[in-house]
Amino acid sequence: MQDHLINYLKQQVGPEHVLTSPEERWTYAYDATDRAAMPDAVVFPGSAAEVAAIVRLANAHRFPVVPRGAGTGRSGGSVPIEGGVVVVLTRLNRILEISKNDLVAVVEPGVILGKLKAAVEAEGLYYPPDPASAEFCTIGGNVAECAGGAVAVQYGVTRDYVLGLEVVLPTGELIEAGTRTMKGVVGYDLTRLFLGSEGTLGIITRITLRLVSKPPARQTLAAGFDTMEAAAATVSLILRSGLTPTALEFMDHVTLGCVQEMLPFALPAGTAALLLIAVDGQPQDVADRVGRIAQCCRDQGASPVLESKTPEEAEGLWRARKVVSPALLKVKPHKVSEDVVVPLGSIPALISALQDIARGRGLIIPSYGHAGDGNIHVNILYDQQVERERQAVPLAVEDLFTMVRKLNGTLSGEHGIGLTKAPYLGMELSPAALALQRRLKAAFDPLNIMNPGKIFPGPPPP
Amino acid sequence: MQDHLINYLKQQVGPEHVLTSPEERWTYAYDATDRAAMPDAVVFPGSAAEVAAIVRLANAHRFPVVPRGAGTGRSGGSVPIEGGVVVVLTRLNRILEISKNDLVAVVEPGVILGKLKAAVEAEGLYYPPDPASAEFCTIGGNVAECAGGAVAVQYGVTRDYVLGLEVVLPTGELIEAGTRTMKGVVGYDLTRLFLGSEGTLGIITRITLRLVSKPPARQTLAAGFDTMEAAAATVSLILRSGLTPTALEFMDHVTLGCVQEMLPFALPAGTAALLLIAVDGQPQDVADRVGRIAQCCRDQGASPVLESKTPEEAEGLWRARKVVSPALLKVKPHKVSEDVVVPLGSIPALISALQDIARGRGLIIPSYGHAGDGNIHVNILYDQQVERERQAVPLAVEDLFTMVRKLNGTLSGEHGIGLTKAPYLGMELSPAALALQRRLKAAFDPLNIMNPGKIFPGPPPP
Repeated sequence: MQDHLINYLKQQVGPEHVLTSPEERWTYAYDATDRAAMPDAVVFPGSAAEVAAIVRLANAHRFPVVPRGAGTGRSGGSVPIEGGVVVVLTRLNRILEISKNDLVAVVEPGVILGKLKAAVEAEGLYYPPDPASAEFCTIGGNVAECAGGAVAVQYGVTRDYVLGLEVVLPTGELIEAGTRTMKGVVGYDLTRLFLGSEGTLGIITRITLRLVSKPPARQTLAAGFDTMEAAAATVSLILRSGLTPTALEFMDHVTLGCVQEMLPFALPAGTAALLLIAVDGQPQDVADRVGRIAQCCRDQGASPVLESKTPEEAEGLWRARKVVSPALLKVKPHKVSEDVVVPLGSIPALISALQDIARGRGLIIPSYGHAGDGNIHVNILYDQQVERERQAVPLAVEDLFTMVRKLNGTLSGEHGIGLTKAPYLGMELSPAALALQRRLKAAFDPLNIMNPGKIFPGPPPP
Repeated sequence: MQDHLINYLKQQVGPEHVLTSPEERWTYAYDATDRAAMPDAVVFPGSAAEVAAIVRLANAHRFPVVPRGAGTGRSGGSVPIEGGVVVVLTRLNRILEISKNDLVAVVEPGVILGKLKAAVEAEGLYYPPDPASAEFCTIGGNVAECAGGAVAVQYGVTRDYVLGLEVVLPTGELIEAGTRTMKGVVGYDLTRLFLGSEGTLGIITRITLRLVSKPPARQTLAAGFDTMEAAAATVSLILRSGLTPTALEFMDHVTLGCVQEMLPFALPAGTAALLLIAVDGQPQDVADRVGRIAQCCRDQGASPVLESKTPEEAEGLWRARKVVSPALLKVKPHKVSEDVVVPLGSIPALISALQDIARGRGLIIPSYGHAGDGNIHVNILYDQQVERERQAVPLAVEDLFTMVRKLNGTLSGEHGIGLTKAPYLGMELSPAALALQRRLKAAFDPLNIMNPGKIFPGPPPP
């Protein structure tokens, strides 16, 4: 990157907020995938106006701009694959307002999700989305990827809580989208279009979130099963029971093996799957529904079925769930994580297909995740040093995506396409749909400077 | 319209499905507003392929295409203001599938909402959105306008239930957007972009809807208040109580006067406002929460506070609510209906401002609607024959929108912009946001053939 551009950036945001040494830049080359690419510079703007100045410079000199929060993404979305400037939004980290009267929060994109959730709960309110990275990830990244988490079964995902956004467009203008109100249909829904747009349509500089009342009670239940099939069948039964669980998570036996010592109880040796279930509501109602769900699990042969007696016990269960992803590296040093979703009735078929793929490709493929909404995190484990395993991984990924599409599923529920899934996009979107998506991108970003190389496979057609 | 074009249309859909006489065309010139414009032809396609053929013809010969369901829209969205062909989707009226396993329904756009709701409930499931026109409107129109209704307080609006769409683009291609799964973040969220796009981005030919379990119990409560202020304050209290009402509707005294004889009970003479509250859930929990909400109303001075004892009594209350809009014509022969939304904490301020506007402009301006989400239906009543009233109406509309924007509100919660609110769009969207919306429209519809003249004020800039 030319010196005069670096100098201009330093003038705009202050020299101490621009990183240029190779060591410093390398720190912002990667996210939570195994992809990395060196940026030309890393900039930490302190205001929306500074973000806009960076974007206008990028338009004038046609260099890529890659927005980034905490870098916890799982699809390479913030990896600067075509170089350019990484715009780190961690200085925009103020909670501007939590309004009990309006049931909204107004925040900057760099706020850590866990801090936001705690601040909201201190006011007796609740912001539900809870990706496993909640203690590290930023709310801006959550919006850009449309993050989910365990309680989506009852409460939905980030999309369902974003009312309004302030955004610097790829062309440099600052606009407001959406509302501070619970409803709104004025013009095209730009707010939800930015949700999950993976930093390719603009840089979010302020977010208005809908809040809900804090549920007065939550109980957690754990149920062990002898077979995967029994666990999957129980998930279907619970979803159709009208007992409306808040979360309905599952872990298979490989996953359980990796987090067993964190669980607040011992599991029998033959446990093939664990369901982790939460129920929110008024205390007596929660107790009733937890009792009926527990009975439903026992009827399906679950043993043990344990209701958490204290908040600490429940927290222990959820803590174990949240460290599953890194814990799997105990089994093999490398992994590819997918987050496919299938229609609810196809969960048993997917679980069974995963076992076939693992056998067929000679790989260990543990799965866990959000059984309650059909969003299963599939982890293909391997050792980079073992050629056979290394070569089998992309074949297993293709097997998986082929099966998911056959089951009318989707390639990603909450991690996004980014870099890692871009080559597979054509398995889900038709050429006409893809062409429309490219026209849409061009309407926002005619010079293709905003996070280029993401979502779409290959270079854009001329 | 030239004969050879009419003949081509007749070839495509069958001559019996093309209307050309002035009398027949006039039937499709208007919707539920007071606007009307004559189409050149009215066509009833029987398949997505026929819809695509009509749209391709329109591109080749550059005539407007205006999609239409039942014509119950409240903002002129289906009025063919620039002529062209009205495409009525009522022949595409099949419920293709209701899946208990996947908790989805797949339907064609011309299905009447009430029929869909009944078919879903017959399977023990529930499709929540319930605009007052549910017995007449089509699900396709609901998607195009992002319809809401009373239970949005708990369940959200149409947007929250549409998982996937099949759409004929303005350029004639048939694409699929979205998924059959509960989550999905693959590519830009075209599904939610079509929600509320008012027939300007394409013609929807199939809809995949998320369903939920049918709540085992629902109870309805009615509470009369002496003053509007007390009613508005009670709404705020209930929303912050954590008692999560399903619906929280309000009617002012003018509205009450128009539907009084339909109510299953007599109200005291001085009743200034009625709250109508529904609570869903497990039976015991519903009874508990209804009791606590009733107490909250009594504490705020409500009298009477009546819990519906039977489903018939509850139905009577909701029936009265649903006929409010036409019933207001008893007071004056004409009305302008607005559906503004303000942040929850500003409901009392809006209610009080409405009284000022009515006094200031010498008009009767009753209001009713979805107090629980801040979406208030404001009705400006007048007599077309009385010049003073006729001239005061647009001034009152401007007063209203100015006040709503001052309160950080939005011009429309569920009726859309269409024709009637297009002149006011600039009160909510900045020039940069509006320019982006126009570029987005052009990316979908380069020749501007799809429902032209809607949403955007005036002709598009050259």
